[in-house]
Amino acid sequence: MEQADTSSVPSHPLIESDHIEGTAVYDANDKQIGTIKRLVIEKVSGHVVYAVTAFGGFLGLGSETHTIPWEQLHYDTALHGYKTSIAEEQLRKAPEFSRGDESLLSGHERQQLSSYYMEPW
Amino acid sequence: MEQADTSSVPSHPLIESDHIEGTAVYDANDKQIGTIKRLVIEKVSGHVVYAVTAFGGFLGLGSETHTIPWEQLHYDTALHGYKTSIAEEQLRKAPEFSRGDESLLSGHERQQLSSYYMEPW
Repeated sequence: MEQADTSSVPSHPLIESDHIEGTAVYDANDKQIGTIKRLVIEKVSGHVVYAVTAFGGFLGLGSETHTIPWEQLHYDTALHGYKTSIAEEQLRKAPEFSRGDESLLSGHERQQLSSYYMEPW
Repeated sequence: MEQADTSSVPSHPLIESDHIEGTAVYDANDKQIGTIKRLVIEKVSGHVVYAVTAFGGFLGLGSETHTIPWEQLHYDTALHGYKTSIAEEQLRKAPEFSRGDESLLSGHERQQLSSYYMEPW
Protein backbone atom coordinates (compact mmCIF):
# COMPACT_ATOMS: atom_id res chain seq x y z
CA MET A 1 0.00 0.00 0.00
CA GLU A 2 2.69 2.45 1.00
CA GLN A 3 4.58 1.88 -2.22
CA ALA A 4 1.48 2.55 -4.27
CA ASP A 5 0.97 5.80 -2.37
CA THR A 6 4.53 6.94 -2.95
CA SER A 7 4.43 6.34 -6.68
CA SER A 8 1.13 8.16 -7.03
CA VAL A 9 2.44 11.39 -5.46
CA PRO A 10 2.66 13.73 -8.41
CA SER A 11 6.17 15.04 -8.88
CA HIS A 12 6.50 18.48 -10.46
CA PRO A 13 7.56 18.16 -14.12
CA LEU A 14 10.07 21.01 -13.72
CA ILE A 15 13.23 21.41 -11.66
CA GLU A 16 15.20 24.53 -10.73
CA SER A 17 18.87 24.63 -11.75
CA ASP A 18 19.87 25.24 -8.10
CA HIS A 19 17.87 22.24 -6.84
CA ILE A 20 19.28 19.57 -9.14
CA GLU A 21 22.04 18.29 -6.87
CA GLY A 22 21.08 15.09 -5.08
CA THR A 23 18.47 13.85 -7.59
CA ALA A 24 18.62 10.04 -7.47
CA VAL A 25 20.00 7.86 -10.27
CA TYR A 26 18.68 4.27 -10.56
CA ASP A 27 19.91 1.24 -12.47
CA ALA A 28 17.80 -0.96 -14.76
CA ASN A 29 16.50 -2.83 -11.67
CA ASP A 30 15.28 0.35 -9.91
CA LYS A 31 18.13 0.17 -7.40
CA GLN A 32 19.55 3.56 -6.49
CA ILE A 33 23.20 3.66 -7.56
CA GLY A 34 24.05 7.32 -7.22
CA THR A 35 22.98 10.95 -7.35
CA ILE A 36 23.30 13.85 -9.76
CA LYS A 37 25.91 16.46 -8.86
CA ARG A 38 25.15 18.85 -11.69
CA LEU A 39 23.70 19.05 -15.17
CA VAL A 40 25.67 20.65 -17.98
CA ILE A 41 23.62 22.79 -20.35
CA GLU A 42 24.29 24.12 -23.83
CA LYS A 43 24.09 27.92 -23.49
CA VAL A 44 22.53 28.61 -26.90
CA SER A 45 19.93 25.84 -27.13
CA GLY A 46 19.17 25.52 -23.42
CA HIS A 47 19.38 21.72 -23.70
CA VAL A 48 21.04 19.52 -21.09
CA VAL A 49 23.90 17.61 -22.76
CA TYR A 50 25.26 15.52 -19.90
CA ALA A 51 25.09 14.98 -16.16
CA VAL A 52 27.92 14.76 -13.63
CA THR A 53 27.01 12.01 -11.16
CA ALA A 54 28.38 10.61 -7.91
CA PHE A 55 28.32 6.84 -7.44
CA GLY A 56 29.04 4.76 -4.39
CA GLY A 57 30.84 6.02 -1.30
CA PHE A 58 29.18 7.03 1.93
CA LEU A 59 27.93 10.58 2.56
CA GLY A 60 29.96 11.67 -0.43
CA LEU A 61 33.18 10.13 0.88
CA GLY A 62 34.97 7.84 -1.51
CA SER A 63 32.37 8.31 -4.20
CA GLU A 64 33.29 8.15 -7.88
CA THR A 65 32.36 10.90 -10.27
CA HIS A 66 31.11 9.91 -13.72
CA THR A 67 29.97 11.97 -16.67
CA ILE A 68 26.85 10.51 -18.31
CA PRO A 69 25.49 11.68 -21.66
CA TRP A 70 21.92 12.95 -21.35
CA GLU A 71 20.58 10.32 -23.79
CA GLN A 72 21.55 7.61 -21.26
CA LEU A 73 19.33 9.07 -18.52
CA HIS A 74 15.55 8.78 -18.54
CA TYR A 75 13.40 10.53 -15.96
CA ASP A 76 11.11 8.09 -14.19
CA THR A 77 8.09 9.91 -12.76
CA ALA A 78 7.29 7.02 -10.37
CA LEU A 79 10.84 6.79 -8.96
CA HIS A 80 11.29 10.61 -8.92
CA GLY A 81 14.74 10.15 -10.38
CA TYR A 82 16.73 9.23 -13.47
CA LYS A 83 17.07 5.65 -14.68
CA THR A 84 20.00 4.40 -16.70
CA SER A 85 20.70 1.05 -18.31
CA ILE A 86 24.45 1.58 -18.00
CA ALA A 87 26.07 -1.34 -16.12
CA GLU A 88 28.46 -0.71 -13.21
CA GLU A 89 31.38 -2.31 -15.05
CA GLN A 90 30.70 -0.12 -18.10
CA LEU A 91 30.78 3.00 -15.90
CA ARG A 92 34.09 2.01 -14.36
CA LYS A 93 35.71 1.53 -17.77
CA ALA A 94 34.33 4.74 -19.27
CA PRO A 95 36.76 7.35 -20.59
CA GLU A 96 37.25 10.05 -17.98
CA PHE A 97 38.27 13.64 -18.63
CA SER A 98 38.52 14.90 -15.10
CA ARG A 99 40.32 18.13 -14.35
CA GLY A 100 39.55 18.98 -10.76
CA ASP A 101 36.08 20.36 -10.24
CA GLU A 102 35.76 21.49 -13.86
CA SER A 103 32.96 19.68 -15.70
CA LEU A 104 33.09 21.38 -19.09
CA LEU A 105 34.04 18.92 -21.82
CA SER A 106 35.21 19.80 -25.32
CA GLY A 107 33.12 18.76 -28.30
CA HIS A 108 35.59 15.94 -29.02
CA GLU A 109 35.40 14.62 -25.46
CA ARG A 110 31.59 14.68 -25.54
CA GLN A 111 31.64 12.71 -28.76
CA GLN A 112 34.04 10.10 -27.32
CA LEU A 113 31.82 9.65 -24.28
CA SER A 114 28.60 9.34 -26.31
CA SER A 115 30.20 6.78 -28.65
CA TYR A 116 31.49 4.75 -25.71
CA TYR A 117 28.03 4.46 -24.13
CA MET A 118 26.27 3.77 -27.43
CA GLU A 119 28.36 0.69 -28.17
CA PRO A 120 26.64 -2.56 -27.19
CA TRP A 121 27.97 -3.86 -23.85
CA MET B 1 40.13 47.95 -29.88
CA GLU B 2 39.37 46.76 -26.38
CA GLN B 3 35.84 45.87 -27.35
CA ALA B 4 37.08 43.83 -30.30
CA ASP B 5 39.44 41.93 -27.96
CA THR B 6 36.68 41.18 -25.49
CA SER B 7 34.30 39.84 -28.09
CA SER B 8 36.98 37.55 -29.55
CA VAL B 9 37.61 35.73 -26.26
CA PRO B 10 36.05 32.33 -26.84
CA SER B 11 33.40 31.55 -24.26
CA HIS B 12 32.73 27.88 -23.51
CA PRO B 13 29.51 26.77 -25.23
CA LEU B 14 28.40 24.86 -22.10
CA ILE B 15 27.48 25.96 -18.59
CA GLU B 16 27.18 23.94 -15.35
CA SER B 17 23.81 24.06 -13.56
CA ASP B 18 25.55 25.27 -10.38
CA HIS B 19 27.33 28.13 -12.21
CA ILE B 20 24.34 29.73 -13.90
CA GLU B 21 23.52 32.34 -11.25
CA GLY B 22 24.85 35.77 -12.17
CA THR B 23 24.92 35.31 -15.95
CA ALA B 24 24.22 38.74 -17.45
CA VAL B 25 20.99 39.69 -19.26
CA TYR B 26 21.16 42.50 -21.87
CA ASP B 27 18.48 44.56 -23.57
CA ALA B 28 18.17 45.14 -27.34
CA ASN B 29 20.82 47.91 -27.08
CA ASP B 30 23.41 45.64 -25.39
CA LYS B 31 22.91 47.39 -22.05
CA GLN B 32 23.03 45.04 -19.06
CA ILE B 33 19.67 45.14 -17.33
CA GLY B 34 19.89 42.20 -14.96
CA THR B 35 21.23 38.77 -14.15
CA ILE B 36 19.94 35.21 -14.18
CA LYS B 37 19.06 33.76 -10.77
CA ARG B 38 18.19 30.28 -11.99
CA LEU B 39 17.03 28.32 -15.01
CA VAL B 40 14.04 26.03 -14.77
CA ILE B 41 14.38 22.75 -16.65
CA GLU B 42 11.85 20.17 -17.80
CA LYS B 43 12.89 16.93 -16.05
CA VAL B 44 11.96 14.57 -18.88
CA SER B 45 13.24 16.45 -21.93
CA GLY B 46 16.16 18.22 -20.25
CA HIS B 47 15.15 21.48 -21.94
CA VAL B 48 15.23 24.86 -20.20
CA VAL B 49 11.71 26.31 -20.24
CA TYR B 50 12.19 29.65 -18.48
CA ALA B 51 14.66 31.73 -16.50
CA VAL B 52 14.16 33.52 -13.20
CA THR B 53 15.97 36.85 -13.44
CA ALA B 54 16.82 39.75 -11.14
CA PHE B 55 16.52 43.27 -12.55
CA GLY B 56 17.61 46.57 -11.07
CA GLY B 57 18.50 47.13 -7.43
CA PHE B 58 22.03 47.29 -6.05
CA LEU B 59 23.96 44.20 -4.90
CA GLY B 60 20.68 42.31 -4.98
CA LEU B 61 18.90 44.82 -2.73
CA GLY B 62 15.63 46.14 -4.08
CA SER B 63 15.89 44.10 -7.24
CA GLU B 64 12.79 42.81 -9.00
CA THR B 65 12.39 39.17 -9.91
CA HIS B 66 10.91 38.32 -13.28
CA THR B 67 10.20 35.02 -14.96
CA ILE B 68 11.17 35.06 -18.64
CA PRO B 69 10.19 32.32 -21.10
CA TRP B 70 13.29 30.71 -22.67
CA GLU B 71 12.22 31.72 -26.21
CA GLN B 72 12.66 35.39 -25.19
CA LEU B 73 16.34 34.91 -24.29
CA HIS B 74 19.07 34.51 -26.89
CA TYR B 75 22.65 33.70 -25.90
CA ASP B 76 25.07 36.22 -27.37
CA THR B 77 28.54 34.71 -27.64
CA ALA B 78 30.18 38.16 -27.95
CA LEU B 79 28.45 39.59 -24.87
CA HIS B 80 28.80 36.32 -22.88
CA GLY B 81 25.22 36.71 -21.74
CA TYR B 82 21.58 36.51 -22.76
CA LYS B 83 19.92 39.20 -24.87
CA THR B 84 16.22 39.94 -24.78
CA SER B 85 14.07 42.31 -26.78
CA ILE B 86 11.59 42.64 -23.91
CA ALA B 87 11.11 46.31 -22.96
CA GLU B 88 11.36 47.44 -19.33
CA GLU B 89 7.72 48.57 -19.30
CA GLN B 90 6.62 45.20 -20.66
CA LEU B 91 8.53 43.41 -17.87
CA ARG B 92 6.90 45.55 -15.21
CA LYS B 93 3.41 44.77 -16.49
CA ALA B 94 4.01 41.03 -16.90
CA PRO B 95 1.81 38.58 -15.01
CA GLU B 96 3.62 37.41 -11.89
CA PHE B 97 3.08 34.15 -10.07
CA SER B 98 5.41 34.58 -7.16
CA ARG B 99 5.13 32.39 -4.12
CA GLY B 100 8.17 33.10 -1.99
CA ASP B 101 11.33 31.48 -3.31
CA GLU B 102 9.40 28.87 -5.29
CA SER B 103 9.95 29.18 -9.05
CA LEU B 104 7.94 26.21 -10.32
CA LEU B 105 5.03 27.36 -12.48
CA SER B 106 2.05 25.26 -13.52
CA GLY B 107 1.47 24.51 -17.19
CA HIS B 108 -1.29 27.11 -17.27
CA GLU B 109 0.92 29.81 -15.73
CA ARG B 110 3.71 29.05 -18.24
CA GLN B 111 1.23 29.40 -21.08
CA GLN B 112 -0.06 32.74 -19.76
CA LEU B 113 3.47 34.07 -19.51
CA SER B 114 4.47 32.90 -23.01
CA SER B 115 1.33 34.43 -24.53
CA TYR B 116 1.93 37.73 -22.76
CA TYR B 117 5.46 38.07 -24.15
CA MET B 118 4.50 36.92 -27.63
CA GLU B 119 1.95 39.69 -28.09
CA PRO B 120 3.30 42.68 -30.01
CA TRP B 121 4.29 45.51 -27.67
